[in-house]
Amino acid sequence: MLALPLNPAWGFEEEGYDLWLRYRPLEGPPREKVEARAKAIVVPKNPSLTILAAVAELHRGLSGLVGRAPVLAGEVEEGAVVLATPASMPAIKSLKLPLAGLGAEGYLVRATKLDGHKVTLIAANSDVGLLYGTFAWLRAVRTGANLEKLDEQSAPKVHLRMLNHWDNLDRTVERGYAGESIWDWWTLPEVKDQRYVDYARATASLGINGTVLNNVNARIEIVTAPWIAKVKAVAEVLRPYGIKVYLAVRWSTPVELGDLKTADPLDPKVLAWWKERAEAIYAAIPDFGGFLVKANSEGQPGPQDYERSHADGANMLAKALAPHGGLVLWRAFVYSAHDTEDRHKQAYTEFKALDGKFAKNVIVQVKNGAIDFQPREPFHPLFGAVPKTPLFMEFQITKEYLGFATHLAYLGPMYEEVLQDDTHQGGKGTTVAKVIDGRAHGYKITGVAAVANTGSHRTWCGSHFDQANWYAFGRMAWDPEASSEAIAREWIEQTFSTDPRVVKAILAIMMESREAVVDYMTPLGLHHVMATGHHYGPGPWVSNLKRPEWNPVYYHQADKNGIGFDRTASGSNAASQYAPALAKRFSDPKTTPEKYLLWFHHLPWDYKMPSGRTLWEELIKRYDRGVDAVTGFRARWDKLKDDIDVRRHREVATFLAIQEREAQWWRDASIAYFASVSKRPLPKGTIPPPLSLDEYKSLSFPYAPGRGLPPRPYY
Amino acid sequence: MLALPLNPAWGFEEEGYDLWLRYRPLEGPPREKVEARAKAIVVPKNPSLTILAAVAELHRGLSGLVGRAPVLAGEVEEGAVVLATPASMPAIKSLKLPLAGLGAEGYLVRATKLDGHKVTLIAANSDVGLLYGTFAWLRAVRTGANLEKLDEQSAPKVHLRMLNHWDNLDRTVERGYAGESIWDWWTLPEVKDQRYVDYARATASLGINGTVLNNVNARIEIVTAPWIAKVKAVAEVLRPYGIKVYLAVRWSTPVELGDLKTADPLDPKVLAWWKERAEAIYAAIPDFGGFLVKANSEGQPGPQDYERSHADGANMLAKALAPHGGLVLWRAFVYSAHDTEDRHKQAYTEFKALDGKFAKNVIVQVKNGAIDFQPREPFHPLFGAVPKTPLFMEFQITKEYLGFATHLAYLGPMYEEVLQDDTHQGGKGTTVAKVIDGRAHGYKITGVAAVANTGSHRTWCGSHFDQANWYAFGRMAWDPEASSEAIAREWIEQTFSTDPRVVKAILAIMMESREAVVDYMTPLGLHHVMATGHHYGPGPWVSNLKRPEWNPVYYHQADKNGIGFDRTASGSNAASQYAPALAKRFSDPKTTPEKYLLWFHHLPWDYKMPSGRTLWEELIKRYDRGVDAVTGFRARWDKLKDDIDVRRHREVATFLAIQEREAQWWRDASIAYFASVSKRPLPKGTIPPPLSLDEYKSLSFPYAPGRGLPPRPYY
Repeated sequence: MLALPLNPAWGFEEEGYDLWLRYRPLEGPPREKVEARAKAIVVPKNPSLTILAAVAELHRGLSGLVGRAPVLAGEVEEGAVVLATPASMPAIKSLKLPLAGLGAEGYLVRATKLDGHKVTLIAANSDVGLLYGTFAWLRAVRTGANLEKLDEQSAPKVHLRMLNHWDNLDRTVERGYAGESIWDWWTLPEVKDQRYVDYARATASLGINGTVLNNVNARIEIVTAPWIAKVKAVAEVLRPYGIKVYLAVRWSTPVELGDLKTADPLDPKVLAWWKERAEAIYAAIPDFGGFLVKANSEGQPGPQDYERSHADGANMLAKALAPHGGLVLWRAFVYSAHDTEDRHKQAYTEFKALDGKFAKNVIVQVKNGAIDFQPREPFHPLFGAVPKTPLFMEFQITKEYLGFATHLAYLGPMYEEVLQDDTHQGGKGTTVAKVIDGRAHGYKITGVAAVANTGSHRTWCGSHFDQANWYAFGRMAWDPEASSEAIAREWIEQTFSTDPRVVKAILAIMMESREAVVDYMTPLGLHHVMATGHHYGPGPWVSNLKRPEWNPVYYHQADKNGIGFDRTASGSNAASQYAPALAKRFSDPKTTPEKYLLWFHHLPWDYKMPSGRTLWEELIKRYDRGVDAVTGFRARWDKLKDDIDVRRHREVATFLAIQEREAQWWRDASIAYFASVSKRPLPKGTIPPPLSLDEYKSLSFPYAPGRGLPPRPYY
Repeated sequence: MLALPLNPAWGFEEEGYDLWLRYRPLEGPPREKVEARAKAIVVPKNPSLTILAAVAELHRGLSGLVGRAPVLAGEVEEGAVVLATPASMPAIKSLKLPLAGLGAEGYLVRATKLDGHKVTLIAANSDVGLLYGTFAWLRAVRTGANLEKLDEQSAPKVHLRMLNHWDNLDRTVERGYAGESIWDWWTLPEVKDQRYVDYARATASLGINGTVLNNVNARIEIVTAPWIAKVKAVAEVLRPYGIKVYLAVRWSTPVELGDLKTADPLDPKVLAWWKERAEAIYAAIPDFGGFLVKANSEGQPGPQDYERSHADGANMLAKALAPHGGLVLWRAFVYSAHDTEDRHKQAYTEFKALDGKFAKNVIVQVKNGAIDFQPREPFHPLFGAVPKTPLFMEFQITKEYLGFATHLAYLGPMYEEVLQDDTHQGGKGTTVAKVIDGRAHGYKITGVAAVANTGSHRTWCGSHFDQANWYAFGRMAWDPEASSEAIAREWIEQTFSTDPRVVKAILAIMMESREAVVDYMTPLGLHHVMATGHHYGPGPWVSNLKRPEWNPVYYHQADKNGIGFDRTASGSNAASQYAPALAKRFSDPKTTPEKYLLWFHHLPWDYKMPSGRTLWEELIKRYDRGVDAVTGFRARWDKLKDDIDVRRHREVATFLAIQEREAQWWRDASIAYFASVSKRPLPKGTIPPPLSLDEYKSLSFPYAPGRGLPPRPYY
């Protein structure tokens, strides 16, 4: 019988659904140590739903880990896990715990004695802190911490840690590569799917405390009564897990619903309309978080349609939400349909001028870079530049430009690179992390958001390794100073194996993976050279799109003389938007970091690189290096065959095969194209692309995933 | 440890993914009896992939049922399951088994002695017969058959038993209510998802031997090289399970791909083009089944665009496929964009005239009724009327017009009703089943197809009970004379419980369920009164669609004088398309079965029904009866709470709550509308609809599931 759990007939083939909350049986001494520490659970009297969620997680976790769910004990006993706040158990005050510094969400987990009994104490100032502490203890258990000496405390450095779902009301997901939306709007509000609970568990286990349920390209129905009822049902599932619900709204909703003739933010009728909507929402969802708005961006309506500013628009909505404590998250991802200025510069220009003009409950949400979630971008120049405007960071977890779900690319290092970059605003050492967590400018509200990669695929994220990106984002939102490598390690230990050899091997692949994508897609600061619309595969030749800044040729500017976007004073001068120290550095190719070279400079093909190679040679070298890296990942993964369960090993291996083929395609098509414009022969030793440029150009993918909704419902 | 498998932490909460192949542990004597009969497996030497699939199923099934996978034995031994053909084990000839009558796909399962050993012999003339026999034995085990006396033989009565997937290349599913397509085209051909294997297992367990992978509203890419490679990968997974792959093709493909200027079927270049495509497909998939074609129907292109007939079109494709043994399945669901004739009559008129004009490898596929998969329709008048044209039956498993996945409606009785209807063609007793299985006209090729209800939802079908419709279709395709009640019983025993009390309770709900839907949606022969496009909910008032026959008002013809579609001689005379005996019966409301009354007759509201009530009173009675039935299902299901696992019980209960609410809505909105046109007061005692007619009319559902692709890819 004991052998059975591994038999596929029992459904024990690992599908990845459990994410990092994978409570597989421990064996031997580790099991005994946990058993000794999990004999009972003590919780506050009259436990809240949040406490019950913590208990359920302990039951689930320990049933899996040691095969036995501990009993709920009325009093502290030997070997218990004790969840306590100073209010629920005044006795813990005698321990002089450093709870004051933990705030409303922090926690402390300590192996200690209570009433003479050896216990594990999880203490916090609130129930959600206890829930976070519970997840922390379960994480400690599974990452091999010494449970006898446990003494961990942690508090989030950022107030709001949010997922943004670009999920449409028909269940498609814009830039989603993991199947349909997890929100089955059609069967809501009646059906509260088990998946919503599991989403809440995973999300809360990372300390994420907010989620925007719908796409920023929002539809008008979301604020109508039937949809508020659906959102309410989701909010009820998420609430015990400390997760507030937010909605993306469409600026023109009052007009499109037929209620008003205008959406002018300065028209009192417009404010009145939104006040009434806010009241309806808060009547259903008293802790509703607020609105996320994409306005006057990529065809979305906005206040500028009425010749009003972003501040006018945001402040009007803020006024509607303020009585209820709601926030307006106003996105800075804007560029004008008429402005011919370098798109890199537009958001900065617009929002810099508005610094200090936003209401108190408005936050401006800024993508990590000034273009659009590229494999690599310098940080957005707004960070550090608007001390009177609280900025949220907007990362992208879903890999719109990094190979969809089929490419292995661990994004932790990318997030870390951005967060640790020094804005030099107000002097050296003002990192983006310090801007975001409020240390730089004393923001009253701080936050980090990311576009989610979740869907109804059995792995949640479309692939096993994309789970690590959700995980890494959550952990870095809690602590923007965290190490992406340490995070990857603990993720591997919880998800795949605690065997140090296996951890080391997987960790190495993960830490190298994003750089490989940069190499085979956008080396040396190239950007936005992807195919049109779906962004799948190479499209450096694309030049037929209506607006210049939609075309890859606009971004790489390659011709027979050279390549790269001149953003110095001789070009768009976007470099000047950075602090003087950086602006100076970016103005000279010699001092510009190589990784941003072609982002800031247009250089001749024969430009001499530090390596001694010409730029043309170096470019090809990078493409080759990217492909070689993936070939290496495949070989290294294959060696882990006996260390990973069969199904997950096979699935990752298959995706790596796809990635290798596509990396090669990126390399070949890019070289074919740049050779055609540079009119240069391939450097000696270069393997020529197997197809003609026309053949690469002819490939089309009309059914690529990640599409948005068409402009109107079909019926 | 033994208690663990029921702990949710282990993922043992039942999700319904296992379908009817749910091998839960047996206990006590039943378990011992199976163990005694499953000590070893004996299979032919050098087993084919099909035999290995049978072995894998025995391993899976017995591991689940008795906790132990039997060993593969080299020789017959006591308690073995022996899989043998006369070729693989000549010794079985001495048993004088009735194998000759079983054909290429039949099987025999018998408890017998071989070499002096008690064994279970599964015998057949082919490996796929052995696979079917294996599933039959596992079914017998789980439905409580006496394994000591087992002696079952069965052969399919129909050659081709097919699923039609209306699955688009972007993974949406037209009329799909179970999430995305199971075919993840994007990651094919590399990723051969485990779900494809499980689909093959479920499908083969019913004896289904063909599947059309893509939507009849087909896209041109499907016959291009990259897609043929994807189809090949799926075919490789399905092949060992005896399932052939077919594709739906778009008539205008050669033109739209830019290869030809015409798709005229009599142009030799067009034939040459399709021959070349057929060769490319057969080079990749040697056992490819053929093409399914929707032509000149609902806006699809077809041979009539070139003033050629359906026969011209079908025969041209048939010529391209004939050298490879491929078939053309030509759909009879056609109605002209210009013909004002009753849509009920058009397919009959068109195809009756073509009887005998089709090539040998053409089959005409006819929907069960002349309109469109309504909750109830009389059988299509083509059945029995074209003795020289092989007809396939086309049922719909997905519930486009029967409440999507959220309404419980067991369709077995609907299939049975159609199959057992007497066409009276060539005399009494010529049932539709006899037409379909070839007994009536001696068709050389016989078949039954159905539009699938599968998707990536964890239940496969969008709900637990919709699995029964897939099951029932498969079992009735194998044997069109099978009893839908017996099928439901064995499905329940395999899926929910073998407790006779529980079986009886569930069976009663299932057997009443479709009639309830008819009552609350389309009582007394009403039809096509659903809302526009998505067909979700009532829309009897709809009159604004471009073509008259798209509008519900066209189908019910209700006004202040009466209601119903006159299809007698005083009306469209569609009744005359049936055999004289039936035509006569349908010409008089007194002899017309009440269930078809308003299908064939326009009658005054005061028409006296056999019940003594007026038609108006009777109509309302039926709506109320439908709602009451669902209310009853809820109460009866609630009583089964302790008999069904928690999750599935809860999920069914929630869907029944939705169904009750929507049944009430159907009843209320229909009564509100018909009262408004009949200008009649509600009969005494009728509860008035709670909303005004305008309020019912104002409801809109722009994000209803089951949409097709928009006319063009988005990018």
